[in-house]
Amino acid sequence: MIRILTDHAGRMTHRSGRAIDIRHVVVRDPARARRTELPAGVVKTDWRAAVNDPQVDVVVELMGGTTTARDAVLAAIAAGKHVVTANKALLCQYGHEIFPAARAKGVCVAFEAAVAGGIPIIAAVGTSLTGNRIESIDAILNGTSNFILSEMLGQRRSYGDALADAQALGYAEADPTMDVDGTDACQKLILLTQLAFGFRASVADALRHGINSIELQDMLFAEDLGYRVKLLASARLSGRQLEMHVQPTLIRCERDIARTNGATNIVELRGDAVGRLILSGAGAGELPTASAVVADLVDVAIGRAQLTFPMLDLWEQNPDLSLMPSDQFERRYFLRFNVLDRPHVIADITDVLGRHGISLASVIQRETPEQPEDTAADPSVPLVIMTHRTTEGSLRAAEAELAQLAVISAPHIRMPVAD
Amino acid sequence: MIRILTDHAGRMTHRSGRAIDIRHVVVRDPARARRTELPAGVVKTDWRAAVNDPQVDVVVELMGGTTTARDAVLAAIAAGKHVVTANKALLCQYGHEIFPAARAKGVCVAFEAAVAGGIPIIAAVGTSLTGNRIESIDAILNGTSNFILSEMLGQRRSYGDALADAQALGYAEADPTMDVDGTDACQKLILLTQLAFGFRASVADALRHGINSIELQDMLFAEDLGYRVKLLASARLSGRQLEMHVQPTLIRCERDIARTNGATNIVELRGDAVGRLILSGAGAGELPTASAVVADLVDVAIGRAQLTFPMLDLWEQNPDLSLMPSDQFERRYFLRFNVLDRPHVIADITDVLGRHGISLASVIQRETPEQPEDTAADPSVPLVIMTHRTTEGSLRAAEAELAQLAVISAPHIRMPVAD
Repeated sequence: MIRILTDHAGRMTHRSGRAIDIRHVVVRDPARARRTELPAGVVKTDWRAAVNDPQVDVVVELMGGTTTARDAVLAAIAAGKHVVTANKALLCQYGHEIFPAARAKGVCVAFEAAVAGGIPIIAAVGTSLTGNRIESIDAILNGTSNFILSEMLGQRRSYGDALADAQALGYAEADPTMDVDGTDACQKLILLTQLAFGFRASVADALRHGINSIELQDMLFAEDLGYRVKLLASARLSGRQLEMHVQPTLIRCERDIARTNGATNIVELRGDAVGRLILSGAGAGELPTASAVVADLVDVAIGRAQLTFPMLDLWEQNPDLSLMPSDQFERRYFLRFNVLDRPHVIADITDVLGRHGISLASVIQRETPEQPEDTAADPSVPLVIMTHRTTEGSLRAAEAELAQLAVISAPHIRMPVAD
Repeated sequence: MIRILTDHAGRMTHRSGRAIDIRHVVVRDPARARRTELPAGVVKTDWRAAVNDPQVDVVVELMGGTTTARDAVLAAIAAGKHVVTANKALLCQYGHEIFPAARAKGVCVAFEAAVAGGIPIIAAVGTSLTGNRIESIDAILNGTSNFILSEMLGQRRSYGDALADAQALGYAEADPTMDVDGTDACQKLILLTQLAFGFRASVADALRHGINSIELQDMLFAEDLGYRVKLLASARLSGRQLEMHVQPTLIRCERDIARTNGATNIVELRGDAVGRLILSGAGAGELPTASAVVADLVDVAIGRAQLTFPMLDLWEQNPDLSLMPSDQFERRYFLRFNVLDRPHVIADITDVLGRHGISLASVIQRETPEQPEDTAADPSVPLVIMTHRTTEGSLRAAEAELAQLAVISAPHIRMPVAD
């Protein structure tokens, strides 16, 4: 980011209508910040240096985390400084403090880099689509989990091996929990939901499942059926109710979302005027993030952000909408059971599903090779069922009964199918 | 557009920071404008009513054409009114008058709807990607020609039949010349080139070929080779030279541009920070266009457009860049000759190509069924050649010689292959 501002200072000054001077670069470890292009004395280790400097107009927060970052951002706002941040976790958790404080102080908080890296999705939803009633958002917002899923299918790797690859290549952190359990994608979805629907939600409000229980065989069964498995983040208006979920989802192979591989992000929006609009690009990385941060910085420098920010009503609540209870979500489902290879198994399972009003669209059970009686091979075989449309509630009730069946030998897999 | 402003007046007022009142709706035929939602007396037939009204702040020009539209836009600017327009032809042809006049008068001209319909590409290139040095733009910007090409391949139709379909379905006008000869796409490319590279070009500056000589067989040969044929609009930096062209181009089947069918538009940008960014959506139509016009109108109403517009330096010239002469364009080419089925034909053609330094990557000549001697069947057969990289200049020189060969029985087809 600093390189963009210094290497292209002339262009940045022109686009901003004023020069952007870097007065403080606050780092944890100054030894790692020896950048020749920085003037002497700019590198600091205490964020208060920036926040307390009366000549500073804008504080860019890129430290991550929600403790020091919260202190620094709230202090910057209290000191009358605009804030540019890439910190979705901070905004999700403390948006209820940060956004009202900024409005009260007459400063703005810009966060293009917090969602989908270099893709200008905040600008698109916040300003360009202002003439639209947004109807739905379907997106891949977490590059790490998408890299892992792409690697599993492309290289025929297990989840564990693909995760290890992602860590070795720097696509996943040592602790990948927030990426693979859907938390990171969910935080980004919550920011988009605020902008698109004026609806304030928290991570706990969205139905959320991670990718860590998905096996390669599930992806191959899905492929056979014409689908790819993606960690889909989705928010959708249904009358006055909003459906929100982040979960591994089957998406028809030919759709752009299904074809988005590696660390790429994609956002598919539907608006009542614009119709279907798709944006895709690098969802993370130093330079794509810098592209978004610089856009925000120029927006603040020239004064556009100050006009936009108060109109977005961030972290206020749209009184016309409510969250749809997840029991009412209605879709088709992919189910994979590990069952004992005995007579009546399919009948037993379909009987339970049928009693909950769930009918089957297709069933896959492959012939298993005859095993010699004395091998200790796992006697269970996969049984894959695609259901017709049903509700999440009906499925949950059926699952509670299925858990009692002795013929099912392990936890089953279930993924919704995107419309 | 009027429906968006009236049906969602509350939201528009909020996002604009002020109410947007429709004071005049100027139409050619008032009988066709009987909209119940319009207050009495709003519909006029003379644009001067709007331009001369001191209470009007913004004039939205959606009439098309370059005669009356030019008068109206220049008069509006002279009267100190901001202009929102979807008229790419007007801006390309008279941008040198319109943009300086607007800057001198302190008003702005916003034109999101002029390129790629509802896709917010002007906002993306003009503001969101401001931290980037844009390296290339590859795009499908004309929905009519893309619909025709998709229809040809999908329905195995001839160009003429697909054009007739497009006209019957309202995707093509009675006179489709500007769409199918690449003029419309070229005008849009010129607007993007201005924003992305600060480079002022005219339609005559870009190498331009239309789709009207492409036959279904060319698309099928391309498909066999792993490519789709698309009317690609492309601008690309090569050092300090800018390559610009609009022509039917072979694009690898798996690329997003190749997979964009029907009237959809797509823009693929590369920036030095953001990397590859793709936007796609409806490129035309009343509602997608309205989405873009309303975004501009709100931008003007709230004052963002007034901040952005002067910084864009529209229709000034970037002195660091020059246009690359088309002779120097370097790519691979798809060539299809209709040749007499005689010995030495391939040798004769490859000999000419070879003398111009053009080497072949692949050749397709299919066995032809034996014809009874007495049929009047066309004795010529298609010969398809894919070349290795060569320059447009070398190819032109070779083509001049090839035109002398008696074994070639008709004008040949040539299309570049996208990298």
